[in-house]
Amino acid sequence: MSSTYGEILKLSIFGQSHGPAIGMTLDGIPAGLPVDTEKLQAFLNRRAPGNNAFSTARKEVDAPEFLSGIVDGYTCGAPISAIIRNTNTRSNDYSNLKDCPRPGHADFPAQIKYKGYQDVAGGGHFSGRLTAPLCIAGGLCKQWLEREGIRIGAHISVLAGIADEPVYLDWVNPNLDAIGTDFPVLNPVAGAKMQEGIAAAKADGDSVGGIIECIAVGLPVGWGDPMFDGVESKIAQIVYGVPAVKGLDFGSGFTGSYLRGSQNNDQYRIENGSVVTRTNQAGGILGGITTGMPLVFQAAIKPTPSIAKPQESVSLTKMENQPLTVQGRHDPCIVPRAVPVIEAAAAIAIFDLYLKNGI
Amino acid sequence: MSSTYGEILKLSIFGQSHGPAIGMTLDGIPAGLPVDTEKLQAFLNRRAPGNNAFSTARKEVDAPEFLSGIVDGYTCGAPISAIIRNTNTRSNDYSNLKDCPRPGHADFPAQIKYKGYQDVAGGGHFSGRLTAPLCIAGGLCKQWLEREGIRIGAHISVLAGIADEPVYLDWVNPNLDAIGTDFPVLNPVAGAKMQEGIAAAKADGDSVGGIIECIAVGLPVGWGDPMFDGVESKIAQIVYGVPAVKGLDFGSGFTGSYLRGSQNNDQYRIENGSVVTRTNQAGGILGGITTGMPLVFQAAIKPTPSIAKPQESVSLTKMENQPLTVQGRHDPCIVPRAVPVIEAAAAIAIFDLYLKNGI
Amino acid sequence: MSSTYGEILKLSIFGQSHGPAIGMTLDGIPAGLPVDTEKLQAFLNRRAPGNNAFSTARKEVDAPEFLSGIVDGYTCGAPISAIIRNTNTRSNDYSNLKDCPRPGHADFPAQIKYKGYQDVAGGGHFSGRLTAPLCIAGGLCKQWLEREGIRIGAHISVLAGIADEPVYLDWVNPNLDAIGTDFPVLNPVAGAKMQEGIAAAKADGDSVGGIIECIAVGLPVGWGDPMFDGVESKIAQIVYGVPAVKGLDFGSGFTGSYLRGSQNNDQYRIENGSVVTRTNQAGGILGGITTGMPLVFQAAIKPTPSIAKPQESVSLTKMENQPLTVQGRHDPCIVPRAVPVIEAAAAIAIFDLYLKNGI
Amino acid sequence: MSSTYGEILKLSIFGQSHGPAIGMTLDGIPAGLPVDTEKLQAFLNRRAPGNNAFSTARKEVDAPEFLSGIVDGYTCGAPISAIIRNTNTRSNDYSNLKDCPRPGHADFPAQIKYKGYQDVAGGGHFSGRLTAPLCIAGGLCKQWLEREGIRIGAHISVLAGIADEPVYLDWVNPNLDAIGTDFPVLNPVAGAKMQEGIAAAKADGDSVGGIIECIAVGLPVGWGDPMFDGVESKIAQIVYGVPAVKGLDFGSGFTGSYLRGSQNNDQYRIENGSVVTRTNQAGGILGGITTGMPLVFQAAIKPTPSIAKPQESVSLTKMENQPLTVQGRHDPCIVPRAVPVIEAAAAIAIFDLYLKNGI
Repeated sequence: MSSTYGEILKLSIFGQSHGPAIGMTLDGIPAGLPVDTEKLQAFLNRRAPGNNAFSTARKEVDAPEFLSGIVDGYTCGAPISAIIRNTNTRSNDYSNLKDCPRPGHADFPAQIKYKGYQDVAGGGHFSGRLTAPLCIAGGLCKQWLEREGIRIGAHISVLAGIADEPVYLDWVNPNLDAIGTDFPVLNPVAGAKMQEGIAAAKADGDSVGGIIECIAVGLPVGWGDPMFDGVESKIAQIVYGVPAVKGLDFGSGFTGSYLRGSQNNDQYRIENGSVVTRTNQAGGILGGITTGMPLVFQAAIKPTPSIAKPQESVSLTKMENQPLTVQGRHDPCIVPRAVPVIEAAAAIAIFDLYLKNGI
Repeated sequence: MSSTYGEILKLSIFGQSHGPAIGMTLDGIPAGLPVDTEKLQAFLNRRAPGNNAFSTARKEVDAPEFLSGIVDGYTCGAPISAIIRNTNTRSNDYSNLKDCPRPGHADFPAQIKYKGYQDVAGGGHFSGRLTAPLCIAGGLCKQWLEREGIRIGAHISVLAGIADEPVYLDWVNPNLDAIGTDFPVLNPVAGAKMQEGIAAAKADGDSVGGIIECIAVGLPVGWGDPMFDGVESKIAQIVYGVPAVKGLDFGSGFTGSYLRGSQNNDQYRIENGSVVTRTNQAGGILGGITTGMPLVFQAAIKPTPSIAKPQESVSLTKMENQPLTVQGRHDPCIVPRAVPVIEAAAAIAIFDLYLKNGI
Repeated sequence: MSSTYGEILKLSIFGQSHGPAIGMTLDGIPAGLPVDTEKLQAFLNRRAPGNNAFSTARKEVDAPEFLSGIVDGYTCGAPISAIIRNTNTRSNDYSNLKDCPRPGHADFPAQIKYKGYQDVAGGGHFSGRLTAPLCIAGGLCKQWLEREGIRIGAHISVLAGIADEPVYLDWVNPNLDAIGTDFPVLNPVAGAKMQEGIAAAKADGDSVGGIIECIAVGLPVGWGDPMFDGVESKIAQIVYGVPAVKGLDFGSGFTGSYLRGSQNNDQYRIENGSVVTRTNQAGGILGGITTGMPLVFQAAIKPTPSIAKPQESVSLTKMENQPLTVQGRHDPCIVPRAVPVIEAAAAIAIFDLYLKNGI
Repeated sequence: MSSTYGEILKLSIFGQSHGPAIGMTLDGIPAGLPVDTEKLQAFLNRRAPGNNAFSTARKEVDAPEFLSGIVDGYTCGAPISAIIRNTNTRSNDYSNLKDCPRPGHADFPAQIKYKGYQDVAGGGHFSGRLTAPLCIAGGLCKQWLEREGIRIGAHISVLAGIADEPVYLDWVNPNLDAIGTDFPVLNPVAGAKMQEGIAAAKADGDSVGGIIECIAVGLPVGWGDPMFDGVESKIAQIVYGVPAVKGLDFGSGFTGSYLRGSQNNDQYRIENGSVVTRTNQAGGILGGITTGMPLVFQAAIKPTPSIAKPQESVSLTKMENQPLTVQGRHDPCIVPRAVPVIEAAAAIAIFDLYLKNGI
C-alpha cells in the first residue's frame, strides 16, 4: 500500500501526472464544517506552476471538482473526494525512461518494482503534480484548524545556500504575518538573493534545493502520544510523503544535537497565567506530545533532479553505460512551490491530531 | 494509541521505567525463523546502562524472558512476547515531578494530558528504558535480516560537537566492520575526543547530544511504496518513536539541500553486471523505493535533558515560578547507548518491508 | 473513519446517491495485472437497476470512468480510481427525511450523528448505490483471482421465505456453473416461486429479503491468521459493510451450532494425493485459516426498508408521533442485485488475502 | 498479522496454551480510569475451566499479573499489559498432531501454514485458553462502560438444540438481571435441559454447540460509521476472533431475512421525550450506526471439535488415511464458558466506539 495517510481521518491520493485526472479522498471528517472554496483556490494557486518566474512552463489551473462529501458548502460526514483533470499532457516526451533512467528520479527503482508497467509519463504517480490533491486536503484542514485558533505558516529558510537572515523567525512568538506573500521569506533582501540563485542555476542548466521552516501556533498542551504515534512520527510520515523531502527536524533539531543540555532545555516560567518556555528548542513537542508552544519543523528539499546538463545513465535493456540528456524545459527550483505543500502536510497531520485529541 | 508500529509485523511496546516489567509483543512473524538468544543478549548488552564509564549508575541486566512465540529455538508463527523485570527501582525520587516539571522532559505535557494519573517514577512510559524492549524486537529482526544478506550498522558521527572524522563512512561501499565495538566510531582518535567531551559535560553537571549515522547494506531494488508508505516515512515513524530523537535525514539530507541538482543526483553506471550509482546522495531511496544502494540515514539525538545544573521551572499547583535542581546521578550522554537502539529501529522497519516485499 | 477496507490493498469508497459522482480508489494492487473492461462491465450490469422486472425504476448505466492506475489495459502499480457520474437524480423527493425518519433506514441515527448536515438525497452515502463502486473493485479482484485459479460464485439460497431446494449446492465439490445467469438460483422452479414472492410483496406495497450463499473455490491451504485477522473476520468486515446485511455465517454456521461435534467435524481423507474433507461444515476455514476446501458463507439480507405501506414515524422537530407514507416507486427486493455485490465483497477480501499470503 | 484489534484502542493478545504465559496488551486507554481487580477476577472466573460440572478437567486460576499501565488502582495512560502464567501443562499429550490432524481443529491448516513449526501443545495459539487474556481486556472495558451507563450481558439462547424458552429476552427493554448467574439462561427449566444435553453428549464421547445472545444497553444514538467501519463490522471482526464462532447476526438477522419489510422495519414513536422504536429488529444498528436502542447480536458456537469418539484422519507424512482417537478428557460443551468471552468481545468493540465517538 502506498498513498493513504491518517489515523482518524484517512487521506487517499490517486492519479498520475499525465493520466485522466488526479485526486484525493478524505474520509473521517465530521459533518457541518464549512468549506470556503475561494480560500481553498487561493491556497492551491500558491502551489500551482506558472505563477512565478521560476516555475515549470506547464501551466495548469488546479481547479478541483468536488464529487462527494460536501453539500451546500458544508461537509456532510461522507468521504470528501475531489479531482483535478489533467490537461496539456505531453506523454510522448517520456518514452525512453523505462530503458534509460534519469538520475535522482524514481525511474530505476520503479522500473524494477513495477516490471515496466509503471506509468512513466510525466513521472506518473511519482510526479510532484500529486502534491496538488495533497493541497486540496491540506487546504481544507488548514481552514478548519483556523476555526479552532490554530494557524500554520511556512517560509523558505534556505534556498540555493542562501539563508533567510538575519531575520530569524522567533520560535517562541512567531509572527506568521511577517512571511512574504509573493515570495515566502521573512527578509526580502535574502529573498532577492535566493531568486538570483535560482536564475544562476537555470542559466547553468542546473537546479537548486532548500529548506522550508513550518510553524503551527495555537496548539493546546497534550496532543499526541508517546513513542510511535508521537507528533514527530505523525508529521514525519506525511512530510516524507512529499516528493523531494530528504530531511526533517523539529525545533533545534540537528543544531540542538551540538548543544549541551543546559542550552537545549527550554526553561519554564509563568506568563499571563500560563506555563510557557523561554526558548522553544523542543519545537513544541516533548515526549511526542505538544507543549502548547509553537510547533516548529524544518524540511530539507533536495535540488530538483530534472536538469538540462548531460548526465551519466545506463541502458537497462543493453545493461551498458549510456549518457543522458533530459529534454524539455525544467523547473530549476521547486522550493517556493513546495512551501504550501509543506503547510498542507502539516495541516493534515495536525487536523488528524485534533480529531483524536481535540473534539 | 501510542506504542504500536508496523504494517505486516505489529510491534507493541509496554511498560514503565519503575513498574513491574517492561516488554514487547511482536506479531506477524513467519514460523520457522531461528532465534539466537546469545547473539540477542550481546546486542541488548550494547544498550544496557552500566557497561561503560559514561552511563547512568542504575545497572540493570536486560535479560528478556520470552513468554510466547518461540518453541525449541524457532519462531512458531504466534505472536512473540518478551518481558524484562524491573529491579532496583527508586520510585521515591520522583514525587515532586507532577508539580514542578523538569525542562526538556515530558513531565509538563504528560501532566496535562494524563491529568496527573501518569506514572512519573523514572519517567514512566517516556523513559529511555522503553528502548530495551525495542531492542529485543530489533535484535531479532536484525538476526533474521542477516539470513537474507541484509546487514545493519551505525556509528556516532557527531558527539559533543566532535565529528567522527576525517574518516567518513563510504556511502557507496560502506565497511560496517570498521565501526569500533567498544565505542562505535570509525576514528578512535575522534572517539577519544568525544569521550573527553562527555567527561567535560559531566564535570559541569551538564550533558551533550550527538548524531548517529545508520547504514543498511544488502537491500534489493524495489522495496517500499510511493508517498506516505515510502521507506523514509516508515523509518521516520519508528526512529522518531525513540525518545530524544529530534532530527532525521536520508543520504545527503540537509546537506544536499544546499547543493545543485548536478551535485546531488547519483549518476548511474553498470558495475559487475549490476546497475549502481557513483555516489549515494539519495541514501538508497528514490521515490520512497529502495535503489539497491546502501540505505543511509542520520538521527539527531538531543542532549540528555536530565542535568545537575539548577534550572528554571514552575509550580503547577501554585502557578508561580520555582527554581529546580534535579537530584540523583545523571547520564551525561546517551548517544553511545542509543546506537544499538537506532539499529534496532531500522531493523524493525526494514524487516517489515521485507515481509511485505521480500518473501 | 468509515469507508476504507483492507490490509495490503486499501479500498476507499466515496460518493452519495444524488451527488455529482460515486467512485472508489483501490490502492496496493501490483503492477502488470490485465484489466478486462468488457468483463467488468458485464459484472457491473448484474448489479445495475433496471435489468430485471423487480428492480427500482431508476435506470443508471454503471459505466465506470477510470481516472488512474491503469495504463494500456494493465495496472501500473499506482492507486486505481474510477468514478461513475450520477444522472437522473431527483433530490426534491427527500426533503422531509431530516424531520420524519423512515423506519429501517439510517435517517434517524444519521440525523443525530451528522447534526442535520448529512446528504439525505437518495440515501446519500448510505444508499445501496454505493455498492456500484464496491462492484468495480470487486469485479477487478474477481478477474485477477481467476488468473490464480480462484473462482467465486453466489446464489440466492432463500428469498421471500422460499429456499433454493431441493437442489442444495454441494459444499465439497460445488458446481458454480450450475447457478442460473438470469436469476441466480440452482433450481429454476424455486427461482420462479421466489419471483412470485417478490411480485406478491410488490402488490402489497411491501418488500422481501433473503439469504445469499457465496462460494469460493481454488483457495490453497494456509491463508489467513488466527484470531482477529482470521478469514471469517476479514470477510465479515467487508460483507457487513454492504447495506442491508444483518447476518453472516460460515459453512454449517448457525445450523452447525445445533449439531454434535461428531456431526460437525469434517473427517479427513486422502483423495488424488491431496488432503480433503468428506464434508465441509467448516466452510473451508479452521482457526481462521483456509483448509483448501471451498470457502462458503451465507449472508442474510433484510427486506428492503423502503415500502409503500403507511408506517409510524415521528417529527424530530416537534418531537411527536407522525404517520409516514414514503412516496416514489420502491424496489420490493434487492436480493437478486445483491448477489454480485456479495461476490464482489468476497473477491476483495480474498484478493487481500492473496496479496498477503499468495504472492 | 493476526492477534491485534481496534481503531483507537489497540488490543494485542499473545501466548500459547502450554507456553510460559498468555497475556494481552491494551493500548490507547485514557488515564485516570479506576480498575476494580476484584470485579475483574469475578468476571474472569466465569470463563475459567473447572467452575462447573461440564468443563475441562484442567483447572487453572486465571489470575492476571498486571505489568504496566496501572498505578495505584488507576490507568496511567501507558499501555496496560497483563499476563497469566500457564501451569499444569501436559505437553506430551500432543506429539502426534503434526502428522495426524484432528478434525475440526486448526491442526491441518496450521501444519501447512507454519510448516511444522507451530506450537501444537494444547492447541498452541489457537487454544480457547487465549480467550482468558481477551477477558482481561474485555472485563476492564466492561467496567469502564458501566461508568458511562452502558451495560453488557449475554445468555445462552440455544444449547444442544434446546432453546432458552418460552421466556425470550425482550429486545426493546431487556432485563439483563434476569439472566441466571450459575448458568446463564433466562429460563432455569431450559437451563436444566441444556445441562442434560451436555451430559448426554459427554456420555456418548461427543460434544454440543449452541448460540449466545448478547445485549448492550445504554448506547447513545450515533456511534459507528457507514460501510466498513459500521458497528456490525467492528463487532464481527472481534467476535469472529473468538475460536469456535461460526455465525453472527444482529437483531432479527437470519430470521428477519424471511420477513417482509413491514414486519422487519422498526416503527418510531416518542416515549418519555425520546425517540424509540416499537420493536428492535435492527438490533440497535441502522446504516452501521447505533440507534439508541439496545444493541443485540447472536453468535453461533460450533460443537467442541475435541471428542472421544473415533474419527477419520490422515497421516500427513505417509499421505494415507489413518483412524484417530483423541486421548485425554474433553470438554463436551464450551458454550457456558463462552458467554463471558462474547461479552468481553462486545465490551472491547463498544469501548473502542466510545473512545472514538463518546468522549
